[in-house]
Amino acid sequence: MNTAEHALSIFALGGVNEVGKNMYAVQYADDIVVIDCGSKFPDESLLGIDLIIPDITYLRENKDKIRALIVTHGHEDHIGGIPYFLKQLNVPIYATRLTLGLIEIKLKEHGLLRETQLTSIDSNSNIELGTIRLTFFKTNHSIPDCLGVAFHTPEGTVVHTGDFKFDLTPVNDQYPDIHKMADLGKNGVLALLSESTNAERPGFTPSEKLVGTHIEEAFNKADGKVFISTFASNVHRVQQVVDAAIKTNRKLALLGRSMVNVVSVAMELGYLNIPDEMLIDASEVHDLPAERVAILCTGSQGEPLAALSRLSNSKYRQVEIFPGDTVIFSSTPIPGNERNVARIIDNLFLLGAKVIYGSGTATGMHVSGHAYQEELKLMLTLMKPKYFIPIHGEYRMLYQHRLLAESVGVEKENIYVVQNGDVVDISHSNARQTRKIPAGNIFVDGLGIGDVGDIVLRDRKLLSEEGMLIIVITLSKSENKIVSGPDTISRGFVYARQSEELLNDVNEIVTKTINKLQKENVTQWKIMKQNVKESVGKFLYAQTKRRPMIVPIIIEV
Amino acid sequence: MNTAEHALSIFALGGVNEVGKNMYAVQYADDIVVIDCGSKFPDESLLGIDLIIPDITYLRENKDKIRALIVTHGHEDHIGGIPYFLKQLNVPIYATRLTLGLIEIKLKEHGLLRETQLTSIDSNSNIELGTIRLTFFKTNHSIPDCLGVAFHTPEGTVVHTGDFKFDLTPVNDQYPDIHKMADLGKNGVLALLSESTNAERPGFTPSEKLVGTHIEEAFNKADGKVFISTFASNVHRVQQVVDAAIKTNRKLALLGRSMVNVVSVAMELGYLNIPDEMLIDASEVHDLPAERVAILCTGSQGEPLAALSRLSNSKYRQVEIFPGDTVIFSSTPIPGNERNVARIIDNLFLLGAKVIYGSGTATGMHVSGHAYQEELKLMLTLMKPKYFIPIHGEYRMLYQHRLLAESVGVEKENIYVVQNGDVVDISHSNARQTRKIPAGNIFVDGLGIGDVGDIVLRDRKLLSEEGMLIIVITLSKSENKIVSGPDTISRGFVYARQSEELLNDVNEIVTKTINKLQKENVTQWKIMKQNVKESVGKFLYAQTKRRPMIVPIIIEV
Repeated sequence: MNTAEHALSIFALGGVNEVGKNMYAVQYADDIVVIDCGSKFPDESLLGIDLIIPDITYLRENKDKIRALIVTHGHEDHIGGIPYFLKQLNVPIYATRLTLGLIEIKLKEHGLLRETQLTSIDSNSNIELGTIRLTFFKTNHSIPDCLGVAFHTPEGTVVHTGDFKFDLTPVNDQYPDIHKMADLGKNGVLALLSESTNAERPGFTPSEKLVGTHIEEAFNKADGKVFISTFASNVHRVQQVVDAAIKTNRKLALLGRSMVNVVSVAMELGYLNIPDEMLIDASEVHDLPAERVAILCTGSQGEPLAALSRLSNSKYRQVEIFPGDTVIFSSTPIPGNERNVARIIDNLFLLGAKVIYGSGTATGMHVSGHAYQEELKLMLTLMKPKYFIPIHGEYRMLYQHRLLAESVGVEKENIYVVQNGDVVDISHSNARQTRKIPAGNIFVDGLGIGDVGDIVLRDRKLLSEEGMLIIVITLSKSENKIVSGPDTISRGFVYARQSEELLNDVNEIVTKTINKLQKENVTQWKIMKQNVKESVGKFLYAQTKRRPMIVPIIIEV
Repeated sequence: MNTAEHALSIFALGGVNEVGKNMYAVQYADDIVVIDCGSKFPDESLLGIDLIIPDITYLRENKDKIRALIVTHGHEDHIGGIPYFLKQLNVPIYATRLTLGLIEIKLKEHGLLRETQLTSIDSNSNIELGTIRLTFFKTNHSIPDCLGVAFHTPEGTVVHTGDFKFDLTPVNDQYPDIHKMADLGKNGVLALLSESTNAERPGFTPSEKLVGTHIEEAFNKADGKVFISTFASNVHRVQQVVDAAIKTNRKLALLGRSMVNVVSVAMELGYLNIPDEMLIDASEVHDLPAERVAILCTGSQGEPLAALSRLSNSKYRQVEIFPGDTVIFSSTPIPGNERNVARIIDNLFLLGAKVIYGSGTATGMHVSGHAYQEELKLMLTLMKPKYFIPIHGEYRMLYQHRLLAESVGVEKENIYVVQNGDVVDISHSNARQTRKIPAGNIFVDGLGIGDVGDIVLRDRKLLSEEGMLIIVITLSKSENKIVSGPDTISRGFVYARQSEELLNDVNEIVTKTINKLQKENVTQWKIMKQNVKESVGKFLYAQTKRRPMIVPIIIEV
């Protein structure tokens, strides 16, 4: 990057034209500050992939310039890529206490805790990193301790909102730093990066507090045990479940590894207030009268191995759902999870449970953590940015956010709807977007990072839909004829025992094909294999209308 | 079935605890009448499966008793299984003209048209089939010409609603036969089978006519071309698009094979009224001023090969979307299709189109064809059944429908929430459900019907997630040692060229394993293969945390 030419540069390495894998950077001269390092779950087309993380080629090539990784909050789409990032670049991390607590869990798992420099900050911190000075402001979201970040550079101030909503009656009285935001705007924001997750939704998100009153009502009304499922990291929600349990004289059991982990970190750090005598172990649930028990569990997104799914299949070892028990989904299904969630609801009804479910805010048991349209307009109005870059969202969300920005007075030509890797350069207060740096998806599969590429995925797709047929032929070197085989092995194509006739036909076709080639003195294996593939493929398609992967193996002896 | 003991029997072979694949039957003594024969699309766990159809073992075993297949309407989940059914059982089919028209398209494709007896009926038909007399009533739905069916048996009357809503201001003035329904109720309905698709939704479905006014408004407002996408079989919707085009002085092009097919059948049979001069060919779209053109296309569910998807990728040969054009989704995404639909919306925005989209009735561009709760209660109230069997729906929908039936006075113990294959027997006005007949999913994969079973699917799943590694070893018969190989072939596991080291290590492990066994004089291939699988599997998991399918091939020469 020619830093003489481009004094201030802003770019995304992940998070635009997608939901997840957030990673942004602000660079001034030779100082780069990275914001967030998230991961994303693969959709069903990426067969067997565990996780997607950002391509950090550009950062690797400029590692001497990276001053810090700032993490806005502790959700996976903001911290999930950190262990993989740190394995390549040892960069100091700045985040609030809860966020650090959640990062530490990850670093422990990857054995990276000792060598990483972690610095705790809060909304009053003021950090100098080379030519860039950072200040922060508190925001509300579905996890506590979230920050927005202001990058004060010689060229001007860049603001990154992180994830936010404006909750004016927040749980735990953690109000958004609305006056700080106003001050930033008054003093001049050169460029605003603001999240777009709910840019398609009109109105203003309901307050988290509303959920608490509905949970308490449901707890009151329930005759039997109450199960309630939500994201473990939604600590305010967890606090409201605890409060409802206290008020309705129920003990609370926690089910699910992430629930137990996050709750213990949040309690330890003082973000969660649970009286000791409140908590019971899963094994104690059935010792108490049903109406004295509440159970907080993971699995609200239908995850097949999480607590709620196992409870719905009667496969949770220590706890059972009985007819008359109440199950509350304090959540809304993320797109793609609808079917798994529906399956669980069906099973819960089959067990005789009363199930409180529904999408969005319909049941009163969930509110979003992301700003709706009026809140996005409020943020834009407070910040009055010259330049605006909508972030965090698929294209239609960025597009709608652009329209919102125009509606509150941002100049149309000053809005940059970017791709991952696009660089917005600002020099003498003039922005332009003409350069690109490398950006993309790196696939994590087991221990492999980036070793599964398009060829492997294409093979997996073919194998998954049509299966394969291995054909083994042994040729004699001296006599130039088949000495053994052809033998066929079917996997995922047809069940061999039921398809003997078909496979015998295949063997005949292979024999004919090879014999014909040998009469023509064709002995190159490549040509032989190609001919076998073609003749068998054609035959199988005519017979079955399927196109399995055909793997000819020729052995010469 | 012991017909002496069970005079009247009702059962589902598909359609309960699922959405799709509807197939029910009413049997009195030796007369069986089948209702509908639908198919269902597989979810993403059924890798490579094209279609799911009902298991008709029971009908095959009782083929002499089957008097007819009655088809309530022309949707895939009611007619999609017919060709496969007819290949096993040649049964006369009764349906309305449009339904028959759509069935004929299928029978032609399968070469079954000539040998099938098709009888056209309408809501006034009266059919005697052995001991069962059938009458019919008109219902509204998202396809014209739908019927409910009353089975008059010596034991009493059984009513099957088919799919329905109560549209009191229907397009084309096809009013529901509400007085006939009332008469049936007045004369006594022994058992009602009523559809449950929208049993979770409170209220009353809006009328289809409402959509027409919104389409016309949008057509009026649009400056450029207007694209509108809906299900081809929603003939009333298509008519309203045609009417809006006429009123706004636009010509209409039809894109997509099923749109062209269904529209031509519906026009031919008089269900659709399109003036000849209205229709233009795709190739003529760009000859007219943009504001004089409307385009009706398939692909509203995000189907990757349908017209709308190709338009959104600029891959439709003759028609292009330009900035300022309007695209209307006259549909709501079916669960599971959300992501594909969202991808298309993103691409449409990228092309600069104005996109009208949203789920449910939010945009006014779509209404459901299935009764909401108040309509379901109205049907139950009209029919006043003694026994009630909620059909068409996943368990939670059947469960909610049961609660609705209780709320309007059906006795709790007279409601049967059944599984596919459960038989409800009614004798002397007393019902019981104690017997089961075979029922289940038959998978269609290419030309194969039922030949892909659990083993093949399990293999496909494994292959899709982890890929496979083929290991070829050639052993000498005489000398009892490896003469060639081991050679490895990776597909969907790792990309061989980038993983030479790993695969060399595998070869070494295989050699060691075989040598060790031979020293111990173990020569059975089965044991050798097992040992190779285990040692290589263990090594690969330690190295990569992946478990590819390992296929050892031993050749003896």
